[in-house]
Amino acid sequence: MRFFSDNAASVHPAVLDAIAAANRVDVAYDGDSFSQALDATFSDLFETKVTALWVTTGTAANSIALNTLCPPHGGVICHAGAHIQTDEGGAPEFYTHGAKLLLAQGDGAKLTPEAIRAVRAAIPTDVHRVQPRAVSITNATELGRVYIPAEVAAIGEVAREIGLGFHMDGSRFANALATLSCTPAEVTWRAGIDVLSLGFVKNGGMSAEALVFFRRDLADQARVARKRGGHLMSKGRYAAAQILALLKNDLWLENARAANHAASRLAEAAGSRLVQPVEANELFLRLSAEEAASLRAQGFHFYDWGAGEAQLVTSWDQEEAGISALAAALQALKP
Amino acid sequence: MRFFSDNAASVHPAVLDAIAAANRVDVAYDGDSFSQALDATFSDLFETKVTALWVTTGTAANSIALNTLCPPHGGVICHAGAHIQTDEGGAPEFYTHGAKLLLAQGDGAKLTPEAIRAVRAAIPTDVHRVQPRAVSITNATELGRVYIPAEVAAIGEVAREIGLGFHMDGSRFANALATLSCTPAEVTWRAGIDVLSLGFVKNGGMSAEALVFFRRDLADQARVARKRGGHLMSKGRYAAAQILALLKNDLWLENARAANHAASRLAEAAGSRLVQPVEANELFLRLSAEEAASLRAQGFHFYDWGAGEAQLVTSWDQEEAGISALAAALQALKP
Amino acid sequence: MRFFSDNAASVHPAVLDAIAAANRVDVAYDGDSFSQALDATFSDLFETKVTALWVTTGTAANSIALNTLCPPHGGVICHAGAHIQTDEGGAPEFYTHGAKLLLAQGDGAKLTPEAIRAVRAAIPTDVHRVQPRAVSITNATELGRVYIPAEVAAIGEVAREIGLGFHMDGSRFANALATLSCTPAEVTWRAGIDVLSLGFVKNGGMSAEALVFFRRDLADQARVARKRGGHLMSKGRYAAAQILALLKNDLWLENARAANHAASRLAEAAGSRLVQPVEANELFLRLSAEEAASLRAQGFHFYDWGAGEAQLVTSWDQEEAGISALAAALQALKP
Amino acid sequence: MRFFSDNAASVHPAVLDAIAAANRVDVAYDGDSFSQALDATFSDLFETKVTALWVTTGTAANSIALNTLCPPHGGVICHAGAHIQTDEGGAPEFYTHGAKLLLAQGDGAKLTPEAIRAVRAAIPTDVHRVQPRAVSITNATELGRVYIPAEVAAIGEVAREIGLGFHMDGSRFANALATLSCTPAEVTWRAGIDVLSLGFVKNGGMSAEALVFFRRDLADQARVARKRGGHLMSKGRYAAAQILALLKNDLWLENARAANHAASRLAEAAGSRLVQPVEANELFLRLSAEEAASLRAQGFHFYDWGAGEAQLVTSWDQEEAGISALAAALQALKP
Repeated sequence: MRFFSDNAASVHPAVLDAIAAANRVDVAYDGDSFSQALDATFSDLFETKVTALWVTTGTAANSIALNTLCPPHGGVICHAGAHIQTDEGGAPEFYTHGAKLLLAQGDGAKLTPEAIRAVRAAIPTDVHRVQPRAVSITNATELGRVYIPAEVAAIGEVAREIGLGFHMDGSRFANALATLSCTPAEVTWRAGIDVLSLGFVKNGGMSAEALVFFRRDLADQARVARKRGGHLMSKGRYAAAQILALLKNDLWLENARAANHAASRLAEAAGSRLVQPVEANELFLRLSAEEAASLRAQGFHFYDWGAGEAQLVTSWDQEEAGISALAAALQALKP
Repeated sequence: MRFFSDNAASVHPAVLDAIAAANRVDVAYDGDSFSQALDATFSDLFETKVTALWVTTGTAANSIALNTLCPPHGGVICHAGAHIQTDEGGAPEFYTHGAKLLLAQGDGAKLTPEAIRAVRAAIPTDVHRVQPRAVSITNATELGRVYIPAEVAAIGEVAREIGLGFHMDGSRFANALATLSCTPAEVTWRAGIDVLSLGFVKNGGMSAEALVFFRRDLADQARVARKRGGHLMSKGRYAAAQILALLKNDLWLENARAANHAASRLAEAAGSRLVQPVEANELFLRLSAEEAASLRAQGFHFYDWGAGEAQLVTSWDQEEAGISALAAALQALKP
Repeated sequence: MRFFSDNAASVHPAVLDAIAAANRVDVAYDGDSFSQALDATFSDLFETKVTALWVTTGTAANSIALNTLCPPHGGVICHAGAHIQTDEGGAPEFYTHGAKLLLAQGDGAKLTPEAIRAVRAAIPTDVHRVQPRAVSITNATELGRVYIPAEVAAIGEVAREIGLGFHMDGSRFANALATLSCTPAEVTWRAGIDVLSLGFVKNGGMSAEALVFFRRDLADQARVARKRGGHLMSKGRYAAAQILALLKNDLWLENARAANHAASRLAEAAGSRLVQPVEANELFLRLSAEEAASLRAQGFHFYDWGAGEAQLVTSWDQEEAGISALAAALQALKP
Repeated sequence: MRFFSDNAASVHPAVLDAIAAANRVDVAYDGDSFSQALDATFSDLFETKVTALWVTTGTAANSIALNTLCPPHGGVICHAGAHIQTDEGGAPEFYTHGAKLLLAQGDGAKLTPEAIRAVRAAIPTDVHRVQPRAVSITNATELGRVYIPAEVAAIGEVAREIGLGFHMDGSRFANALATLSCTPAEVTWRAGIDVLSLGFVKNGGMSAEALVFFRRDLADQARVARKRGGHLMSKGRYAAAQILALLKNDLWLENARAANHAASRLAEAAGSRLVQPVEANELFLRLSAEEAASLRAQGFHFYDWGAGEAQLVTSWDQEEAGISALAAALQALKP
């Protein structure tokens, strides 16, 4: 019973069906009808005209987004625990040709307007210093926390004021949205987001993420960066089909709700062990080495998170039996 | 009836079946059993110990290969018509951090030892000039020609002598091999190849190519470049499964033979119109604007190739009816 | 008696005097009064408002200029024999983060509108191909030829028409100008040049070249690239002082005329051996290995230029005795 | 009376004399006798065989050094206040093609073995994380502190143990050495340093710094990077001559002692206002806005250092009258 990554989960059957249904000759790259449908589909979803591209990984999505927002000599303000800083093997630096990630702090891996202003204020505006050109936040965050629209909008305001492009890493955007009682528009472009990396792989997809450009003037640059990064697949229709299948009838939200629900169940069981409120599909909890070993001996798989803590991630296909078993096992631990 | 690109063809049903069969939770990235099987499978195929990685596109495969063979300040000798020079949007320059492609000429888009020596000889060995560090050939070439093992070995000898890494772009390696009466080993590492980009997407695959390292010491660098390029998919097992499905029972060669056979049929019909011998699955033929228009009016789709010429590409799933119809139409053209 | 490079010549005494005269504490980087005077001085010289920056080498000047005109994914059209292609160790690729030099041919290392159009026409406008974004010409060229204003203007017209930034490598701009009967303005911005690398090192300077931006909006990007390339010297005043000293009373033109005059004298002596008309301070002439050896035995130093040819470069400080001696020696060779 | 930067000081007359004395035609680039003398001169100084190159700026020296020690996908551990992080406009990222600076903390801008181990320990050794490949320290530090040989050696030990190249930014190496009672060897290669950026510009030079390679195998890569960065001056002899002039009869140490002595005088006067011990030629002291204004009104120029603090830098040519005047003015301030 694995609770280690939604990244490793299975692919939703509807996605496989969609791939099979797309299996005929078509125009190569993104000239096919599936890829061509993305703009309209995402424009509907976000209630505004957007340009949307498929890419294969979240790392590629984030890095290409930053390529469009930050020049080689610029900087990207992000949380010190941001995925782009800690888990992408330097891809953001690669795609921006050497831009610098300017690290800020904040509870729950969340940035605040104050933290961003502090980074900006500490950098004299001259040619000797790398100047901030963009800010990137992750929603839901790397610690499973969710930005509400007002929080995003407050950052959007700062970004506009001090001249920063605004990127949202939404590798778990569906999980965030499933928690929020708001529209996709409210927590993105209405709050100032210029580009969204919208993840599907962690949410039932196989190999397709979307880059959604609210600033549509940036999309041409992204198309070039996607090609130059070797991400323009010749049979792009199979990526587009995955995305369309997950958006259809809000399957993506259904999947996210299932994952979030599993996390809530476990959160209840974990009680005071939690070191972060559980707002999406991740749990961070205090767990001694002995307790971790005991749970693993019972067949539960999860990551350590530094000394004395553990990270659990639930996924769209988390089985009820496993959830119940882990909940019981957590409650059975001495407090 | 399309004869424009094997890139746009359908995916072989066995590949879709393999994807479906892999659909269960597994270790993320390339820790799964499918990805882990690649080394052994390709080592068997090539009769030597190799390291093999999946990537999603041929552009990524080529560019990552060059990243391992050429430093940022070096040069890669290739044909002026090489895919890496003309069709990859600068990806080789991106992945090598600015290496220079040093262009050579040769019939049929083929390099020769003499052409390579001429490039080398024209560049003084000093710090003012970009020094060649690698050579890249394409087999089958961009003009549908095939290098025989002795030709590759002759280039391999030069490469070794003047200190160049040796890369083969095998986006149509299966088509070349289907034509040659040799083993995969003979036309690659036994002839001096260090790294092979082995294409599957043009040959019935969906989104998986292989990078085969005969110089296994280069593979770690490739793993890093793959991650840094955003190509390390979290659900890599679905890529590995595609490759394994195509290799099983030599399905990849069967597919290539089908495509080559279709090309041969058309070549016969095209007769003296051919501007290149047909050795794989591409045809280049003289065709006036009127003739091209007439064929298109009959429902045949293909690319122009400069003024008065056309490029036809056949694929693994080329239908018999279409082949016959086009053959007849070609023969019906006045000579 | 050396005739191998104006690069190796001595520094004009007036330059050393100017350096000594600048020797007092001042504002660092380019905040000093000498650096601050460059804009006005070059604006006067070019009869239009320009922004001018010092850099230390011609390679840096060219590469920073291209950084401002061409994005990482773009291409720069230049002659196959251009210094940026053959002699700068990949610096243009480095400063542009991997842009591609798109090579054209032309007599005397000169580009023509037709050659540029041909490069452009051969590249389909799609995401798979590196798109031209700039064109760079050298005046005087690498073969010692001079573009007249009308030739530059014809290229400028093409550049504007097909959307290319226009750079002039003027490492021997003074030599060109000394030959032309035109103003500096006529052969640069009035002919469409956006940025000029204006060389002083080959013309009596020590370590200072100028970057002159006729498109002044590009200068901020150049300031950033200069810093990021490690070229923003803290004691910039000593570079600016060199430039100002050479411009004062047209010393730069006097120096260039001296070098050109020496070349003319030798050209007369070389007669039908010349393989290029001598228009500036370089000579390319047929010279057998025996003849070259004989001249060297007489104490003349120069470069070979491929088999059976030699390159001679004259400099501002070429001594009369040496010129006469070489002229005599050339005439003494059997025809 | 300026106390703001040794960067802005005048050039020592002996340096100007040496430039004048080098003024004759010679071999271009670094083939001249001055440049060729650097290896032997620095080998004597450091009591071991080294390779030494001139470059024009400290930023170039540091960035080229890091280029030789860290691949594009690697990381460089340095202090959060290191010049390479805060004052070089992203040059280290540029020259390393996107390596990441991994920031550590430490009193006086000094790294410790523990701080380095902590950075290393926090980064799992896998392909998802940028792996540390080098460590860079500054001696004297950005806060005017000096590493003693034992401190450097302790870091050298860690570097060797965990596989990091070891760079010393010695833009004020002379000032550090003037304070230490040790040989140049003891605080560099004997303590594990692989490459030293040895500054002369802040210490009486005009436009020449030295890169000293104790790991001589790295020097070829540096030569290439220097050319590719546009730093290979054609008249390199004027740079080499500056360095040789400053090394002659230990003029560089004499200059450094003068600067350090001025700082000591001021430190005594500043007393308990000092926020860092004064170990070289920089002072950091508490100074209210009113006090700063009062000093400036008396004609003293210096930098603010955040709120309520000031940075003073003394130079080799600091005049006695100015030092006395400032010392008196500092003492006259109410405590």
